[in-house]
Amino acid sequence: MAKVEPRTLSGFMELLPNEQILFNQMKETIQKTYEKFGFLPLDTPIIESAEVLLAKAGGETEKQIYRFQKGENDLALRFDLTVPLAKFVAKNYGSLSFPFRRYQIGKVYRGERAQKGRYREFYQCDIDIIGDGELDLINDAEIPSIIYTLFKELGFDDFTIKINNRKILNGLFEGVNQKENSTEILRIIDKIEKIGKEAVIEELRKIDVKQEQIDAIINFIEIKGSSDEKIEQLEKLGIENETYKKGLEEIKEVIKNVRLFGVPEENFKVDLTIARGLDYYTGTVYETFLNKYRELGSVCSGGRYENLAEYYTDKPLPGVGISIGLTRLFYKLNELNIIKADKKSISDILIIPVTESLEEPIKLATDLRVQGINTEVYLNNKKLKAKFKYADKLEIPYVIVIGDDEIKNKKVKLKNMKTGQEEELEMNAIKIAENI
Amino acid sequence: MAKVEPRTLSGFMELLPNEQILFNQMKETIQKTYEKFGFLPLDTPIIESAEVLLAKAGGETEKQIYRFQKGENDLALRFDLTVPLAKFVAKNYGSLSFPFRRYQIGKVYRGERAQKGRYREFYQCDIDIIGDGELDLINDAEIPSIIYTLFKELGFDDFTIKINNRKILNGLFEGVNQKENSTEILRIIDKIEKIGKEAVIEELRKIDVKQEQIDAIINFIEIKGSSDEKIEQLEKLGIENETYKKGLEEIKEVIKNVRLFGVPEENFKVDLTIARGLDYYTGTVYETFLNKYRELGSVCSGGRYENLAEYYTDKPLPGVGISIGLTRLFYKLNELNIIKADKKSISDILIIPVTESLEEPIKLATDLRVQGINTEVYLNNKKLKAKFKYADKLEIPYVIVIGDDEIKNKKVKLKNMKTGQEEELEMNAIKIAENI
Repeated sequence: MAKVEPRTLSGFMELLPNEQILFNQMKETIQKTYEKFGFLPLDTPIIESAEVLLAKAGGETEKQIYRFQKGENDLALRFDLTVPLAKFVAKNYGSLSFPFRRYQIGKVYRGERAQKGRYREFYQCDIDIIGDGELDLINDAEIPSIIYTLFKELGFDDFTIKINNRKILNGLFEGVNQKENSTEILRIIDKIEKIGKEAVIEELRKIDVKQEQIDAIINFIEIKGSSDEKIEQLEKLGIENETYKKGLEEIKEVIKNVRLFGVPEENFKVDLTIARGLDYYTGTVYETFLNKYRELGSVCSGGRYENLAEYYTDKPLPGVGISIGLTRLFYKLNELNIIKADKKSISDILIIPVTESLEEPIKLATDLRVQGINTEVYLNNKKLKAKFKYADKLEIPYVIVIGDDEIKNKKVKLKNMKTGQEEELEMNAIKIAENI
Repeated sequence: MAKVEPRTLSGFMELLPNEQILFNQMKETIQKTYEKFGFLPLDTPIIESAEVLLAKAGGETEKQIYRFQKGENDLALRFDLTVPLAKFVAKNYGSLSFPFRRYQIGKVYRGERAQKGRYREFYQCDIDIIGDGELDLINDAEIPSIIYTLFKELGFDDFTIKINNRKILNGLFEGVNQKENSTEILRIIDKIEKIGKEAVIEELRKIDVKQEQIDAIINFIEIKGSSDEKIEQLEKLGIENETYKKGLEEIKEVIKNVRLFGVPEENFKVDLTIARGLDYYTGTVYETFLNKYRELGSVCSGGRYENLAEYYTDKPLPGVGISIGLTRLFYKLNELNIIKADKKSISDILIIPVTESLEEPIKLATDLRVQGINTEVYLNNKKLKAKFKYADKLEIPYVIVIGDDEIKNKKVKLKNMKTGQEEELEMNAIKIAENI
């Protein structure tokens, strides 16, 4: 028979089991942490009507989208979990309790140009808190405490949650009459570390920003120090703009409450340069960096928005949320070999019967499973060496060989595959489970 | 702004949180049970090259598939988890340990005509055991023990795993010189429960099966009694055909070992009428019925096949596996209101602060989370009544109100929302966790 080459599309992650186990542990840690904070699960379809999914989209998003006809229907694959959330909340407004705290962990699709570490199918892990008409600012302070808990649970200590407020930047640009140029100015000042202050000033001049305005912008981005020092200096800049003042007030309150939520000083920081998506966020914004692996970029980002679902409903639905691009994060961490895994195998123990009578081995396996131990019985007829090799390759931590002697004496040897040590135990699931 | 109607496509399940919680518990029970038996996780892309995905397909499958172009690529959405498994094993043959025991739980896509309880996007929950060249028959006996454990874990007692062997049927057809018609005959006798014996005979006549052959077939499918009695009668039929004899030998061995694996007599049964997929299975086949809800049809089916990946590789890869169509199963069980849930909410407790000082409520929440308690703090400024209503609607089982008195006295009242009873406790996470 002519064979088809069994290939996987480029830009699509498909892991071998030993890596999939690590991936699933990360995913489960994220899920469990979101649930610890009382977020409710949501699972929306991957396919939506293109009209619904693209109600807001434009530009890059539209180009990257997987869109196709099926019968009469113009369909598209979701490219994030925010638009489906907006649709869901607008559709089910009357059935939900607000604030609506939901998490969603699922695959999204973007037909980006494929390159190493970039995926066309990838997991996003989102939480959002949606208010009905209003949502208190204190929620903006809870989010960093969730990020903090999560990255601690994932095994990291040295990370920084950077916090800014979009109103400060917007107010600054309004205050210097450069609101229309704000996108361009942000792009230029973003390069300051690369090209230096003088070059930035030069570029700002080129787009007709006046010297006085340039001075204000440079003063602003040169603000240094601790979070409190930065806030103090922002107050001293004396920018007379209501948006700016509101942003300053908000960030002060958020920082105060982030402390209240128990996030240690070393894990968060006011950073006036982060902006996040230019048209969506309207208040607090977050980015999270693993300090030893800055090259990963932000590993968890989000912020506050005015109105989740304006394309679907007149109801004002303000919210605050974050997203983790898990597939890319996993790829990078795995490449760096820094994923902390509780378990490297699914099975905790492999039982190898070397007897005609399978009754006792199977009974022991069943009893061990009742004790919460993932237990596999090696059922196939191979040489003992091949069976041990199987346990080894799957990194199963314990092996018990059961032959006629073991059955007669009701004793087994529990072999620790890592140390090679064996311990003789009663053939009793509770006793064995205690030693695993 | 003109609004787009926030709708979800028909044939796509999208649950409200209280139902999603139940769904996720079922999904997690399935996953944990599969892991208890040492199956390794796999997560293949939802999109594959159409050429790869359709290497084998034809007929109905081809018509139902979601297939589309993206740039130069002819793509399709997976319609089951078996074809991606075949591709994966063929592609990664050298990196896998055999027998390769894998589970996969994921969404698949079929553009069926939408109707109540039928889904175009649905979860399949599969396990398969794949051998390298050969796979011992004992594996066929382990599968029913996994089905048994799983449905017990899902809260069911009264279910029957029906077991048959395709070789018996095939041998029977060979024995009565109807091998060429076997697909058609199987299709007809598969309907016996629905359309009755007379209609089956009528249909067999229509395709020119002779009376003598019809008698043999009907004698066969009318075999009654216990599993052992059926096997005995199969032996007495005296069909002199090697395939038939092989099948009989296999089913005897499988039934013997199903008992060995501890499946109680009342939960399994030889059923000579089940056939499952007409060209795929080659030996043992399974269907599972919830006896009180026969209208659901088989809720877990599968069987033994000769060759998983013949479209991709020359390597013979025999296997045995099962699949659960979770979305439809959930829909039906939910409609019948018979899903057993451990928890109806994500949060175990809602802390309601009625004080300016949030420090103590937040500290308690953090401590409770460390104790493994999912804890939400009600952060928004609402009337106390609205806050209790929120807990009520989300079915959060416990509430603690923390005001200035509670903080001063270091005591809180733990309110059981179901009984309305309150218990005064020290404001201490360990003490509170003990009472939840």
